[in-house]
Amino acid sequence: MECIFCKIIKGEIPSYKIYEDDKTYAFLDIACDSYGHTLVIPKKHCTNILDCDEEYLKATIATAQKISRHFVEKCGFEGVNVLNASGVSAQQSVFHLHMHVIPRKAGDGIDIWALKDKKELDLEEICKKLKI
Amino acid sequence: MECIFCKIIKGEIPSYKIYEDDKTYAFLDIACDSYGHTLVIPKKHCTNILDCDEEYLKATIATAQKISRHFVEKCGFEGVNVLNASGVSAQQSVFHLHMHVIPRKAGDGIDIWALKDKKELDLEEICKKLKI
Repeated sequence: MECIFCKIIKGEIPSYKIYEDDKTYAFLDIACDSYGHTLVIPKKHCTNILDCDEEYLKATIATAQKISRHFVEKCGFEGVNVLNASGVSAQQSVFHLHMHVIPRKAGDGIDIWALKDKKELDLEEICKKLKI
Repeated sequence: MECIFCKIIKGEIPSYKIYEDDKTYAFLDIACDSYGHTLVIPKKHCTNILDCDEEYLKATIATAQKISRHFVEKCGFEGVNVLNASGVSAQQSVFHLHMHVIPRKAGDGIDIWALKDKKELDLEEICKKLKI
């Protein structure tokens, strides 16, 4: 079965398009959890940030920037969150790379830091294990 | 007063460095809310995604990708979340662009979608207002 986001790019499945250029496509998230929640995807299929072609990844973040500026400069928003989930364990649900652009206003009731669980950890030890 | 992340880049404030190249710097988040939570920042100062030089924004996402691959391929993680907050209303707290890279494993207790508030919205109307 073909990727649902590839079908959206081709127009085989309808979408609420926000923006499109040669390498990227942006449309409203049908999960529709907050006003203007948009997904930016590369037109070349990849699963997530781990396997994405670097050129298309860069185009995707450039489009996220373009949309963010549009939301703030033209649509009355005050800021944005940009969010990507890569991998089942990272709560990715559609396996075509997508950057969520979530437009924000003061008092909108969204808490991006609700994800935090405030553990106490040994940063020095973690750094030794994780550094490149 | 100079930007705290610019001082970290210069080494004037210590940090737990994960990676560095000519355009970007990555270090553990001292808020330390989850194991391996890393911040990737551009070496050229900007406030957030709205005013970031495109070249440095692209370098920042490329470094986020490099670190994500390292975490999954070499450090035993299964996925990552990449997250940016741009603007006070988007819960940004340090005003130098930073991409959070949050390494993930099944059962880690993090819920990236805790931010959702599940509103019912009219996507067609929203699209008309927000599209570029």
